[in-house]
Amino acid sequence: MTTAENATTSVEQEPSAGNGAPARAVDWDNPRVAAILAAAAKCFARKGFTATTLAEIGKELGLRKSIVHYYFASKAALIHEVQSYSYHKYLERVKDAIQSTGDSPADRSRNALQAVWESIHNNKTGLGLNIEVWSASRRDPELKRRAVVLQKDARKLVSEAVADVLGVKPDQFPALEATSTLILAVLNGLSISEYLEGDDVKAKEAYDQFLYLMRLAIKAMKPAS
Amino acid sequence: MTTAENATTSVEQEPSAGNGAPARAVDWDNPRVAAILAAAAKCFARKGFTATTLAEIGKELGLRKSIVHYYFASKAALIHEVQSYSYHKYLERVKDAIQSTGDSPADRSRNALQAVWESIHNNKTGLGLNIEVWSASRRDPELKRRAVVLQKDARKLVSEAVADVLGVKPDQFPALEATSTLILAVLNGLSISEYLEGDDVKAKEAYDQFLYLMRLAIKAMKPAS
Repeated sequence: MTTAENATTSVEQEPSAGNGAPARAVDWDNPRVAAILAAAAKCFARKGFTATTLAEIGKELGLRKSIVHYYFASKAALIHEVQSYSYHKYLERVKDAIQSTGDSPADRSRNALQAVWESIHNNKTGLGLNIEVWSASRRDPELKRRAVVLQKDARKLVSEAVADVLGVKPDQFPALEATSTLILAVLNGLSISEYLEGDDVKAKEAYDQFLYLMRLAIKAMKPAS
Repeated sequence: MTTAENATTSVEQEPSAGNGAPARAVDWDNPRVAAILAAAAKCFARKGFTATTLAEIGKELGLRKSIVHYYFASKAALIHEVQSYSYHKYLERVKDAIQSTGDSPADRSRNALQAVWESIHNNKTGLGLNIEVWSASRRDPELKRRAVVLQKDARKLVSEAVADVLGVKPDQFPALEATSTLILAVLNGLSISEYLEGDDVKAKEAYDQFLYLMRLAIKAMKPAS
């Protein structure tokens, strides 16, 4: 699945763009659009939504503010698009990481969660952006709506990976959604600890401890294997 | 331990107040100070630090802005104090919850983490404030420093509770810090899920799943019991 398909299937367009008005439909495959979105993500993560101007984002790329404005009608529109773009880019990386960790479910079980950790650990911009989204979504219902959709997407991805590792169909494992919710919570929670305390906090050790707990649970589920 | 003692042992005073200048030392036992701090916590959690004014906080209590100013020299000073105050109030409630859950370590093991969940679940203001602190601490080193101290306090509290439940001394259990970090991450992560998705997300089920994993780990540690 391409990122462009992702965008249309998982996240609805801005209402203005969705009503058959393609004038400023955001094309993630346009290199300039992608560059603006990546620069905006960095600026927002560093300084927050309020303190960042469209002019500053343009400056990062040597573009005038009017060019940024040409692609994004308002800062609000840019914020919404950055959120979807960054999250989908990130989920793509996680999917790749999971798929490249081995052929057998057993290999993947050992390595998939490890790969997910690496992707989050190396994605400081993504975390900074998330925290900004959580804070701003209180005042921006559209931002919150999109954050919820993205959260559900992530949970679906994790659920599929867990079902695959356990070798079960999703509907055969009643605790699947709770387990996926827990995994996402651990990832979110530990990345906050790292964000606040940096290397002082034993986030990696805590995650390894979680993987150990998951292995115990898998063993408890399959006493014969 | 009283909350006033907590304030001086765990969180240092503002530098200006610490240099032998007691003029505006913050006294949490003063009912008016406590009322201002509680009202400020509510306003900040609802609207964020930037959008909230000292006048609005005063208005919540029918006080003029000048009265709020008399106790807190600046909004920054109030933000820092609110953060410490709310967190310590919260930790006190958690401590009470843990202690009142039973006499034997086994009783406490069953109920302590459940009590902690209830305290977080019912503390929407605390979560809103946390998210605001995480976001603002990027731009406010003093806020971040305090957030780190409070995070360490919480981890220490969780570590003591875990050691107590397992019936070990903290230095006998090398994975103690990692386990406490994991527990805090689960609580932070799940409260974010609830904050975003409300009752749609199976946060309680996910937490129960975590408690099940912890029970498996305790069983694996003590095969004889």
